[in-house]
Amino acid sequence: MVGVDFGTLSGRAVVVRVHDGAELGSAVHEYTHRVIETELPGSGVRLGPDWALQSPQDWIDVLRTAVPEAVAAAGVAPEQVIGIGTDFTACTVLPATADGTPLCFETPGEPHAWPKLWKHHAAQPHADRINDLAARRGESWLPRYGGKISSEWEFAKGLQVLEEAPDVYARAERWIEAADWIIWQLTGVESRNICTAGYKGVFQDGHYPSEEFLAELDPGFAGFAAKLATGQVGDRIGDRIGDGVGGVTLAPLGGLAGRLTARAAGWTGLPEGVAVAVGNVDAHVTAAAADAVRPGQMVAIMGTSTCHIMPSDRLAEVPGMCGVVQDGIVPGLWGYEAGQSAVGDIFAWFVDSFGADGHEQLTSLAEKQAVGQHGLVALDWFGGNRSVLVDHNLSGVIVGQTLATRPEDVYRALIEATAYGARMIVETFEKSGVPVEEFVVAGGLLKNPFLMQVYADVLRRPLSAIGSDQGPALGSAIHAAVAAGAYPSIEEAAAAMGKRTEAAYVPDQARADAYDRLYAEYRKLHDFFGDGHMLHTLRAIRNEAHP
Amino acid sequence: MVGVDFGTLSGRAVVVRVHDGAELGSAVHEYTHRVIETELPGSGVRLGPDWALQSPQDWIDVLRTAVPEAVAAAGVAPEQVIGIGTDFTACTVLPATADGTPLCFETPGEPHAWPKLWKHHAAQPHADRINDLAARRGESWLPRYGGKISSEWEFAKGLQVLEEAPDVYARAERWIEAADWIIWQLTGVESRNICTAGYKGVFQDGHYPSEEFLAELDPGFAGFAAKLATGQVGDRIGDRIGDGVGGVTLAPLGGLAGRLTARAAGWTGLPEGVAVAVGNVDAHVTAAAADAVRPGQMVAIMGTSTCHIMPSDRLAEVPGMCGVVQDGIVPGLWGYEAGQSAVGDIFAWFVDSFGADGHEQLTSLAEKQAVGQHGLVALDWFGGNRSVLVDHNLSGVIVGQTLATRPEDVYRALIEATAYGARMIVETFEKSGVPVEEFVVAGGLLKNPFLMQVYADVLRRPLSAIGSDQGPALGSAIHAAVAAGAYPSIEEAAAAMGKRTEAAYVPDQARADAYDRLYAEYRKLHDFFGDGHMLHTLRAIRNEAHP
Repeated sequence: MVGVDFGTLSGRAVVVRVHDGAELGSAVHEYTHRVIETELPGSGVRLGPDWALQSPQDWIDVLRTAVPEAVAAAGVAPEQVIGIGTDFTACTVLPATADGTPLCFETPGEPHAWPKLWKHHAAQPHADRINDLAARRGESWLPRYGGKISSEWEFAKGLQVLEEAPDVYARAERWIEAADWIIWQLTGVESRNICTAGYKGVFQDGHYPSEEFLAELDPGFAGFAAKLATGQVGDRIGDRIGDGVGGVTLAPLGGLAGRLTARAAGWTGLPEGVAVAVGNVDAHVTAAAADAVRPGQMVAIMGTSTCHIMPSDRLAEVPGMCGVVQDGIVPGLWGYEAGQSAVGDIFAWFVDSFGADGHEQLTSLAEKQAVGQHGLVALDWFGGNRSVLVDHNLSGVIVGQTLATRPEDVYRALIEATAYGARMIVETFEKSGVPVEEFVVAGGLLKNPFLMQVYADVLRRPLSAIGSDQGPALGSAIHAAVAAGAYPSIEEAAAAMGKRTEAAYVPDQARADAYDRLYAEYRKLHDFFGDGHMLHTLRAIRNEAHP
Repeated sequence: MVGVDFGTLSGRAVVVRVHDGAELGSAVHEYTHRVIETELPGSGVRLGPDWALQSPQDWIDVLRTAVPEAVAAAGVAPEQVIGIGTDFTACTVLPATADGTPLCFETPGEPHAWPKLWKHHAAQPHADRINDLAARRGESWLPRYGGKISSEWEFAKGLQVLEEAPDVYARAERWIEAADWIIWQLTGVESRNICTAGYKGVFQDGHYPSEEFLAELDPGFAGFAAKLATGQVGDRIGDRIGDGVGGVTLAPLGGLAGRLTARAAGWTGLPEGVAVAVGNVDAHVTAAAADAVRPGQMVAIMGTSTCHIMPSDRLAEVPGMCGVVQDGIVPGLWGYEAGQSAVGDIFAWFVDSFGADGHEQLTSLAEKQAVGQHGLVALDWFGGNRSVLVDHNLSGVIVGQTLATRPEDVYRALIEATAYGARMIVETFEKSGVPVEEFVVAGGLLKNPFLMQVYADVLRRPLSAIGSDQGPALGSAIHAAVAAGAYPSIEEAAAAMGKRTEAAYVPDQARADAYDRLYAEYRKLHDFFGDGHMLHTLRAIRNEAHP
């Protein structure tokens, strides 16, 4: 089984054994064009601020290099591979023709013809308009996204194309997630997965936002959802959802999107005709890798930011969540997503700018301290606050410094602040009637045991830890195993192939009690600064002052 | 005229021309024993935490080395010198016998026999008891000190001696400020200056705190004020104040304390019999050096901390002031003192701990910014808050940081925070009915023009600047000129010999307006954190957690 994880700077392929999930070999391909932020390759056309693009050629190159290299590294014959699954960053989205050709292959000098990477943030004004109008009209889908959709998502980016490059918009017969586009390349068949459609495409209760709503945004935008629609789906896809605009049919996660074409077999070296799983998102597919796809298992993918993914058997409006999508993580359950805008990014910022000593030294000094010994509490809003306040104009606060405060004190306080932020999210879910039964950690920050212990103590609960450092790719392989029919469901495949150590970190009662007192202060800061009055004023003054 | 400034680590002598204040020569003597903080010289007896002592021998050595060196450097004949004035850190206080012998000369192995330097902070519990009792009894002197006296002052330190070393207390026939002790050494006559008696000795309305009050603190403390009393004063001291405990008579500033003895003439190389001015405090005497001794001239001595000194023709209870003392700066006016616990210390702390680049580089980057461009506002309470909150358990707060925040942003925000703190003090005086007519800067921070400009913009008023970098020593020489009869008053001597550049920094209207918006946010933080609820909790947690 092969899983391929398409990331921000590279793609990773891993070969996984079907019966136990053993990771037999892997390989990474760094994208030649990396993130395209300043000028277009070849033409040198300049991009505006906050733009971020990728090249589809880089994605194909992952299939051509990383996949065969991983198979070779695994020491298995390509014929032993029975399926391939993939996951992608999201919302990474591109305009294409009806046959799937990216428009940037036709007009490479046109910025809007290129795929917009998830972190393309130039559509913020468009997102603002969408949110304002949706709030004014009381659109029923808005609360499903914590009250605000993101500038990163399909509709904001699509509206930007319409208004800034109407010719590109007109030529774009398809507006498609890279997660689905890569499946199209592998199978020759277009499909749309439930996950990105729900979380990034605002697909709720069987339909996209209404034509009337879209027309009110911009008359030219009325038919946008038709660019998302598809009538074609691969076989062995069980349930189909939706009967909305354009006869949308979405492909369920773990489903079979199609079979490997001869062309894609040529790229990958895999046998033609092996099963190709429905596309998926890197964070969401990690739940399978951690064998955490049952209700109440919250998977926190902790890296530069943290993404929280949790299946549940009940629907609720959780303040500040990124989204809740039916079947969005596994079929049959509601899938919740929440997030912290910056986590590892905060520690990296602090070390790069203020702490010459580096992470290891700071951690080693910080972990010697008793809880509260530094006298500090901080708000972890250095990159804004996604959950639970959904306010990207908030900023960080550090309280309690004295002339004796050392860098390791601040470093520890910043780690703790992100843990308080996580506790705030967990408590908000539970207060909203969505129980969190288990907190499962995946991602790069797992490698800092001190940080993990802080989280266990602050959250007052044991932490489970994923048993793989290539979670998304492993999760994709698990989905592929389901698509190939090796397991009847994601749950069963995840149980066999996923890797999770329960209670990898256990809270210490005394430390947890001490953290309760500090968390109470964090909540007071959260209340005081969370209304945004002061932080928005500072942001406004900053923006006016900037030369 | 010779002025001698006894500082924390060294003493400085300067020779000044009587008719125009020209500084003809100066010399510095570094104290051999510096600050005695860990163990006693010779005996090696260990000291407790927060102890800070000095050696009287070091002070004598300043007279023996720095004074003759300054005279030599000035190129004047000793016979041309007609007077000497001195100033001291305060409250720096020592126990002595009735003939002025420091007890530490008799029992050098006894910690409590040594002079306690101003920053000896081990008497905090004693200060707390004094404040609690004074508040409970409604002592009329308490509001004269902003509602709290300091652990640094004479009564707190004296109570500590009584309770921790009763034998030393019993042998101490005199409890005397170093400012007065050094005059005793020069003249052979004991005197007590109005300035330290008022600001550090809680002498108000003609008397020290009552015997009844002292007895309630500790029965053994009832007669403490007798150790402060003296019936002896030098000639040519005009007004005498007080008729309280022990027949106290205090010596007015600018008065003649006595004449140089043969022994002191031997030390200094000056002629026997020249005029010796009444003792004074380094901050207070600086007002004369800046020619800022008229009502409403606030002199801010800005260094590691800032001390604000201002004469006024009216008495008011200004919240959070350090003290108001009749004739405390110049005879005939009320003398106000306020302070910011940490100023230059904050910038030094930041550079040492977080900003590898150093002051010059950070200043050069910070001064390029527009007001508010960094998006930050901070509370300058890293060393607690003296004025206007009188709360040493407060701590610093930095608000508005993002992942793009650079060290120069924080550095600038910290400078601005201290300027907001200064504005808060100025506004508090004015709101209390004590007008601040002119803001005059002295001290080491004058050498940073960017910082001065920030203060002018934040305060929305021109800043005057002292024209000397040895303000206290110059001020002492001015006082000596008055004591010697060269001028009839401190005002007239200061006008002739003091140096002040008016409007050295002028506010920019646009920047001042921009700062008004940030200052409004500072005030909100001041209100929110100033009640101490959160910061005291953090401090308490810290203190409990400390190993």
